[in-house]
This record gives sequence, C-alpha cells and structure tokens, in this order.
Amino acid sequence: MPAFTIGIDLGGTNLRVAAIGEDGRQLEAVSSPTQVSRGREHVIADIATATALLRRKYAHSHAFLGVGIGLPGIIDVETGRLHSAANLPGWQSYDARDDLSQRLDAPVFLDNDANCAALGEKWLGAGSHVNDLCMITLGTGVGGGFVVNGKPWHGILGMAGEIGHMTVIPEGRPCACGNHGCLEQYASATAIGRAALEAADAGESTALAAARNQDSALTARTVYSCAQAGDPAAMRIFAMAGYALGIALANLINAFNLPLYVIGGGVARAWDQFAPAMFEQLRTRSIVFRAGEEQKRTHRATEVVPAMLQERAGLLGAARLPVILRPGRCCSMAV
Amino acid sequence: MPAFTIGIDLGGTNLRVAAIGEDGRQLEAVSSPTQVSRGREHVIADIATATALLRRKYAHSHAFLGVGIGLPGIIDVETGRLHSAANLPGWQSYDARDDLSQRLDAPVFLDNDANCAALGEKWLGAGSHVNDLCMITLGTGVGGGFVVNGKPWHGILGMAGEIGHMTVIPEGRPCACGNHGCLEQYASATAIGRAALEAADAGESTALAAARNQDSALTARTVYSCAQAGDPAAMRIFAMAGYALGIALANLINAFNLPLYVIGGGVARAWDQFAPAMFEQLRTRSIVFRAGEEQKRTHRATEVVPAMLQERAGLLGAARLPVILRPGRCCSMAV
Repeated sequence: MPAFTIGIDLGGTNLRVAAIGEDGRQLEAVSSPTQVSRGREHVIADIATATALLRRKYAHSHAFLGVGIGLPGIIDVETGRLHSAANLPGWQSYDARDDLSQRLDAPVFLDNDANCAALGEKWLGAGSHVNDLCMITLGTGVGGGFVVNGKPWHGILGMAGEIGHMTVIPEGRPCACGNHGCLEQYASATAIGRAALEAADAGESTALAAARNQDSALTARTVYSCAQAGDPAAMRIFAMAGYALGIALANLINAFNLPLYVIGGGVARAWDQFAPAMFEQLRTRSIVFRAGEEQKRTHRATEVVPAMLQERAGLLGAARLPVILRPGRCCSMAV
Repeated sequence: MPAFTIGIDLGGTNLRVAAIGEDGRQLEAVSSPTQVSRGREHVIADIATATALLRRKYAHSHAFLGVGIGLPGIIDVETGRLHSAANLPGWQSYDARDDLSQRLDAPVFLDNDANCAALGEKWLGAGSHVNDLCMITLGTGVGGGFVVNGKPWHGILGMAGEIGHMTVIPEGRPCACGNHGCLEQYASATAIGRAALEAADAGESTALAAARNQDSALTARTVYSCAQAGDPAAMRIFAMAGYALGIALANLINAFNLPLYVIGGGVARAWDQFAPAMFEQLRTRSIVFRAGEEQKRTHRATEVVPAMLQERAGLLGAARLPVILRPGRCCSMAV
C-alpha cells in the first residue's frame, strides 16, 4: 500500500492544505478561504476540516503517515511550542504540536516556512541530488533555511537561517534588526523597490521615474522590467543585490562548504540581472567556491542555482516532515 | 577492559604521538624529534615506531580501537587521500588512509588539524556540554572547524571551516587568497604584528616603536603587552581584531545558530583586549545572539568562549576520531 501525508502551508495571508503521496505526487489540494487574521481558532477549524476530508478520502488506499505544518515563526522543535509568530495573530506561545496532534488525532510535525521551503527543494526541486543545502528566499525580506544530513537544521534556538541579517557592508544601510548593512537591505524586493524610488527621486533614471507613474511603489518586478530594457540605474540596483548576495554566499560557502545553495523568492526571477555580479563576488571572495570550480569533474563543485518549485516548495517540504522526522529513523539514512 | 586509541598530531614542524584512554586520560606520549621537512617516509617511519611502542605497551591491558591522525591539509574524507598539504613536503596527493592503515596494521582515521582541535575541545574542553560547535583558531593565520551532531563537519570538498577567509570588510585589506577584507587580515597574529609595525612606522605609538627595539618583528604577544600597559595604538589594534571577529561571528551565529563558538590559538590569550569589541559587534549585529541572551535561563544562549585545551586540542581530537568514526556508529548517538 502506498503512503501519504498531509502538508499544510500556513502563510501570513493564506492557508494551503494538500494530500501528498510519499513519492511526491499531489493527490489533492484543498483550497481554503481562511483568513489567518481571523485568529487561531478559525484557522485550526479549517485545518481540521480539510485534514479530515483528505484523510477520509485517501486513507483506504494509502497508509497515512501524519501531518506536516510549515508556519512563519520561531518554533521550539523540542517542545513543539511557537516562540513567536509576528504574522499569525494568536499563535504566539502556543503549544502547537501537542494541541494540534490532539485535535487532528494524528502525528503532527512542525517547522518554519523557510526550512520547509528548503526541504521541499531538497525533496523534489533543485536539491534532489544532495543531502545538504542552503536555501535563500529573496522576498519582502530575505529568509534562509538549511538542510543538513537530509533534515532541517534548526540551531539551538530554532533560529538558524537568519541569512537576511548577515552583515555584508559593515557600515552600510541601517536595518530594523539594529544592525547596519544586512543582506536584506540590498537583496530583498523591498530594498530593490526603495533603491529604485531613491534613483527616481535623485533624477538618476528617467525610465524609473516614468515607471513610477504607473506603479507608484516601484515593485521589484517593475525595476526588473526597466533593467531588462537597459536602464543603467535599474541594472545597477540588481548588480548591487548580486554584490551583496555574493558576499553573503561567499561567507557561507567558505564556512560550511555545502554542495548547493538555492535562491528562491520573487526576486530570484531577476536571476539574469543579479547573477553575474553574484558569481563575480563568489569567484573573488571564496577560495572554497574556486576550489570547487577546479574540481567540477569530481562532481563536487559548489552549485548556486535558482529554486525550482517556487511557492509550492513550502507546502511540499511540510508534507515531507512526517516522513523524515518520524521516530526511530536514523539520521544517517538517505532521505 | 578499558579501551584506548593512538592520537597523532602532525604539524608543520612537529610530530606528537600519544596513547589516550577512551576516558580522555593520557596514558603516555612519545616525544619525537621528527622534522617533517625531512619528508614523508621519515615521518611515517617515526609514526610506525611510536605507534608500535605504545600499542605493545598498552594492548595487553586495554582494547585498541585504532589510530587517529590530524594534519594540516585538505583531506578527501571519503577516500582518505590528501588533496593538498602545503606544509608537509611529499604528502600531496598521497593515499594516506589506505597506506597508513596497511603500514601501521591498524584502522586509521584522518582529519585536518582545525577539525581535530574542534573535536578535542568538544570532547574534553570548552565544548564538552554541547553536540555542535564552531572553533576559530587565531594563529599565524585564522583557521576554523565545525563539530555537527558530535562529528567533524567536512563539507563537500573537505574545505569547511575556512573562516579566516570570510569577508568582514568588503573593500578592506587585500588577502593572499585573492579577496579583500578577510577576517585573517585583522585577527591573526600576523595581522596584529603588521598593524603594530605600521603604527610604529607612522609614529602613532612610542611604546610600539620602543618595543620594536627588543622584538623587531613585533609579535602579537609584544603588542598585547603594550596594550595591557595602556598604549592606545596597541589597544586599537586589538579592538580592530575584535571588531572583525565580531562581524564574522555574528554572521556565523545568524546563519547556523550553533550553541557554542570557541576561540583558540595564541591570539586568544589576548581575550581581555579584543573581547569587548567582539561582544559589542555581536550584540549589535546578531539578532540570534541577542535572542539567546534574552533566553539565558533556558540554557540556550549562544556562548562565545576562549578555548581550554590550547595546543593539546588537536592531539586529543585526533585520538577521538577512531571512537566516533568507527563503522556502524549511528550519527544520532551522543558522543
């Protein structure tokens, strides 16, 4: 009998629930109109309904292995308690794993959204050929997650992966975290839009100024269109993002020498604009990256590639949690 | 019957061999006048003699588990072959594990010196209470090693731990590795001596200029004495080392959230001179370090501490290799 799990991706605005086969095929996804802003009990009721529906439908033909949930917060993976979850009203200090296991009558496994995305890419995306990877998500902010020996790496506080707050320019732009020169200040969609507004204000780009008439906030997507059309200021903004990303990646590669770094999130679609500057920094700044390039024939080069699964990565990674975290599984086994 | 291993620390100038009990007690150390500059065969003959002597002496009262060797080079841990070993003439591209296993008639386990030092501190030093740590050695250069789940972490090329070449000041001092602003350019003994010579040359410090009359190269130890005596230029040099170390550590802590970072090597003895600037940077630049400080009561704060074992760490870590790497041992077991 084949097996399946239920994966749940609980974002700051949407809830997605799906039954996923152990082989990665999606059996069925339940679209839910849930507004997480309505509070925890509403969300849990919708989770319970969708889970029961999917379980009833597939449990006669598949072995059910449990529920995996990805959510935007800091989770104590030992106790299953949420430390903080800024975008999930009512979820802070909630004993999520114990309570949900009871209410769903199923084994429940939790992780944060960045780790789930990294695990999804490891399972079915850009990282299916490796056991260790780092994923960097360039979105509104910059997030990160590690998979080590096939499993999410949490760190002592469950806070591993705060790659957006790595210092790339020590006396650079101030960040809300209290630091200066964080990666997030150069390579997030927010930073790209802000830099474009500054360039338009400073009269450095007629293209960006004109684009602002249609898109007053100047999204990263608009800035990308201007860069693709050859606007020098827009191109410089992406080159700066690539420069910052290259410094952060060079530091990660020199430190941990993982085989694969996956770049996801909306900004990753601008790959052709920022990647040349990123690789230039990698080659200059990382002796480990260069050593890998010299050994490409041994298949041990460091790869830096765009993500493959886009916004499905988190859901698929969540669905994988019950398989790789079930008790008794040895961490040295391939997953 | 208690068990023992033979640990070997093969440095760029000295060879040290010791029989170490599984409980960490040193049964006996064999001093050897070996000059590694005389070449590989001389060194191997001395290793074989010392190993045979120790084995003969203790194998009747102890179970012998194997030989662990730490050496300064890049090792392919899968094949046991040395990729490079700049300070060991004749060892490059040598199938060390296979050849030594045969010639010593014993299971042989290899790792690089930085990983052995990290493992030594994990076993018997500053890290005996954790399973994961990062060790940074501030010596002639700046080296690094990680222990993850109780074992050395090698990375895909065996090059993990190149922490000395993390970028801390993107447009900073040029480094021989091809990068600018590497940690090693600010926090190594070499960098500290060079900065002191520059300060003396520039007439910024009469104390350093006077010290140079006794110690023309101005070692880090001499600069430390001047700093301890209150010389502002010498104090600034250590503050700069602490600043650079703080940036590198903040990046490591934000990325991996390990529980412990151990600072070793000769420069670590100047802890009271560089640590204040280091911790100031950590508190400013690492949200993960700050979160740990707020949770000290949960015993999950990020610790940054001086090493305990000094130059014995590498020998003890090497001696531990046969115990933690023997086949069949599950990686999830505590070590």
